[in-house]
Amino acid sequence: MGIVVQKYGGSSLADADAIKRVARRIVDIKKAGHDVVVAVSAMGDTTDDLLDLANGVSPLPPAREMDMLLTAGERISMALVAMAISDLGYTARSFTGSQAGVITDSVHGKAKIIDVTPGRITQAIGEGHIVIVAGFQGVSADTKEITTLGRGGTDTTAVALAAALEADVCEIYTDVDGVFTADPRIVPSARKLDRVSYEEMLELAACGAKILHLRSVEYGRRYGVPIHVRSSFSQLEGTWVVNDPKPSAPSQGDTMEQPIIAGVAHDRSEAKITVVGVPDKVGEAARIFEALADAQINLDMIVQNVSAAATSLTDISFTLPRTDGQTAMTALARIQAEVGYDKLLYDDKIGKVSLIGAGMRSHPGITSKFFGALASAGVNIGMISTSEIRISVIVDENAVDDAVRATHTAFELDADEVEAVVYGGTGR
Amino acid sequence: MGIVVQKYGGSSLADADAIKRVARRIVDIKKAGHDVVVAVSAMGDTTDDLLDLANGVSPLPPAREMDMLLTAGERISMALVAMAISDLGYTARSFTGSQAGVITDSVHGKAKIIDVTPGRITQAIGEGHIVIVAGFQGVSADTKEITTLGRGGTDTTAVALAAALEADVCEIYTDVDGVFTADPRIVPSARKLDRVSYEEMLELAACGAKILHLRSVEYGRRYGVPIHVRSSFSQLEGTWVVNDPKPSAPSQGDTMEQPIIAGVAHDRSEAKITVVGVPDKVGEAARIFEALADAQINLDMIVQNVSAAATSLTDISFTLPRTDGQTAMTALARIQAEVGYDKLLYDDKIGKVSLIGAGMRSHPGITSKFFGALASAGVNIGMISTSEIRISVIVDENAVDDAVRATHTAFELDADEVEAVVYGGTGR
Repeated sequence: MGIVVQKYGGSSLADADAIKRVARRIVDIKKAGHDVVVAVSAMGDTTDDLLDLANGVSPLPPAREMDMLLTAGERISMALVAMAISDLGYTARSFTGSQAGVITDSVHGKAKIIDVTPGRITQAIGEGHIVIVAGFQGVSADTKEITTLGRGGTDTTAVALAAALEADVCEIYTDVDGVFTADPRIVPSARKLDRVSYEEMLELAACGAKILHLRSVEYGRRYGVPIHVRSSFSQLEGTWVVNDPKPSAPSQGDTMEQPIIAGVAHDRSEAKITVVGVPDKVGEAARIFEALADAQINLDMIVQNVSAAATSLTDISFTLPRTDGQTAMTALARIQAEVGYDKLLYDDKIGKVSLIGAGMRSHPGITSKFFGALASAGVNIGMISTSEIRISVIVDENAVDDAVRATHTAFELDADEVEAVVYGGTGR
Repeated sequence: MGIVVQKYGGSSLADADAIKRVARRIVDIKKAGHDVVVAVSAMGDTTDDLLDLANGVSPLPPAREMDMLLTAGERISMALVAMAISDLGYTARSFTGSQAGVITDSVHGKAKIIDVTPGRITQAIGEGHIVIVAGFQGVSADTKEITTLGRGGTDTTAVALAAALEADVCEIYTDVDGVFTADPRIVPSARKLDRVSYEEMLELAACGAKILHLRSVEYGRRYGVPIHVRSSFSQLEGTWVVNDPKPSAPSQGDTMEQPIIAGVAHDRSEAKITVVGVPDKVGEAARIFEALADAQINLDMIVQNVSAAATSLTDISFTLPRTDGQTAMTALARIQAEVGYDKLLYDDKIGKVSLIGAGMRSHPGITSKFFGALASAGVNIGMISTSEIRISVIVDENAVDDAVRATHTAFELDADEVEAVVYGGTGR
């Protein structure tokens, strides 16, 4: 009978009926004897509408004012959810990120949470209220400016609140039934995972699974917050993201060994830049990555070829979000004379396919099976990068679907008929 | 080169183009060497849209959450205005009512400003920024809850900021050219007033002139803030609301004596309740008005007849906002047995016509001329109420237009041809 933190995204709050449905879910938890704290995103298309308004008055709006504008979205949805709860005979108090004590750094548009001081929340809980908190937003520690946490920020708000309040669980409500072994739109036989470790979820999120935001998983792992990803359109159990997937299992007494592979993720949002003919001297590569860091660009995979002995020149390739492509190319062009490289190549017709699973640590032969599956499907591998629980490859953009399906089948992740029925037969 | 405070209402901020036009006006003042602080309302229909959303989830939303919801409107408009200013090469900082230091009591939906602590505003001004403040909202002193000031609240925000910042002027931008001697929709020959005293403006506002909110005028009078009511669609001088209309006149060296009458106001938003057969004993009337006060109802005119000697019974009539009619009737019905009155009569087919002018203090015969004009127009007078600078009568709702026109003509307020041209020939 502790605290349950819930998060509802924009698709769960699309209109008045959706908000009323969410209010009923919230009240059900309260009726069951729990204290409830809810983080909400802006309704449906609100954020896009606000962005359109901003673009209407300025092609390059200041980030501070953009944060001020966008935070109106959660303010609207949280008040409406509180009203809908009130209409069911329970009392709710809505709080902005600032009121809820979500303290961030002062980087507008992608602020990081540095502390949560939930004094007003605990007071409201103590008074018997259901608490609704605006997701995605906070207030900067030094300048007391309104900040936003960037895309997916409400997931992070929810997990941070759960950590600060020492909640029993953080329930992330979404429009699918949980985390799947692959995107069901590409692999109809994909299976829902009952549970997954923080590490696997981190890799899945980092590799393109959009269901849970990377930073929220990092936060959850650091503070040991059990995260339950589930659908706001059904009462089905979803996927539990926990420290050690087995002991935390909330249901089913199965005794299967931990599966080797959690899933296959893919990502079509990256581009590849190759810096050709970099002099193979100490500090040259550092200069390149310094310039990219100064431009606030997060790189993903990085590959440096062995230099050709004859020329002492090397090529450096890396991947990055396509949206940062132009900025990165400009930053690199500026240092061409200084570094003395030959030329830049840009390719945004790529995709990344990743095989993820904590079990692969103790199972040799995973890599060869993965590459073999890709070869059988006629997929050519561009770049390769690995971690202890992940293997990622860059392939041609058009080969992504084939690569995902071939890998999913090779690792025996496809659901059999019985399981497909269990999960509604649709795979979602 | 002091501080200029400006207020723009929703009709001046209807869309992106309107916001850009407002931004250019603001920047013009800044270019002229002034510091500028701007209070903004929500864009065009935003407030109505938010009310619709609220009604969609709850028939009777809690006032606290309604305030949280509605304040999103100014948050959106202030950020957009700041962006539009930035696009013109100037820097702007938007602040919520809470950030701007607008401290109120804790009556949600119609909070009163109790203090303004504009530390962040003066800091931003000192850094060279244009400051945009969300109108209509504040934060409660004791509970730190978000509050709204009620209808017309942004006028009050602007005047309160002007007072706290010791601004040179508070410019209230609206969609008409200033304050007129009567509503130009009813009296096409109505003239724009160049200047009007706080007292006259108070009476005009209280009697139905919608151009400036009553509380903002009260605030302006208390702190001696010069208020300039003008159109956001032209560069014309508007109407100055000042302490002594003559010395503060910003233009024209005219030597005319102060006119007797400032204008004729009308109001169709009231209803009349008559309590019939009240025992004429000490305390009975007090009990009636106590019950109405407990129900938070503001009364306007009150008339008690002399009791008929034979019965010792009297009738008490009063007017009140139509929107409070049902509440008042319910409150009175509850005390019928206790007070022992006979019955209640309710009439919402009434209108109020008021003649206002500081000059009437020293001019006898105003009342007889007013009533004479009404008689000539065939208008029957219901109730009468007077102050030192105002005479109001209740008439039949359908007789309001005739009464206003006849009075306007009788007191020679009609514009001649020359003046009609000066003010654009449209009377607005």
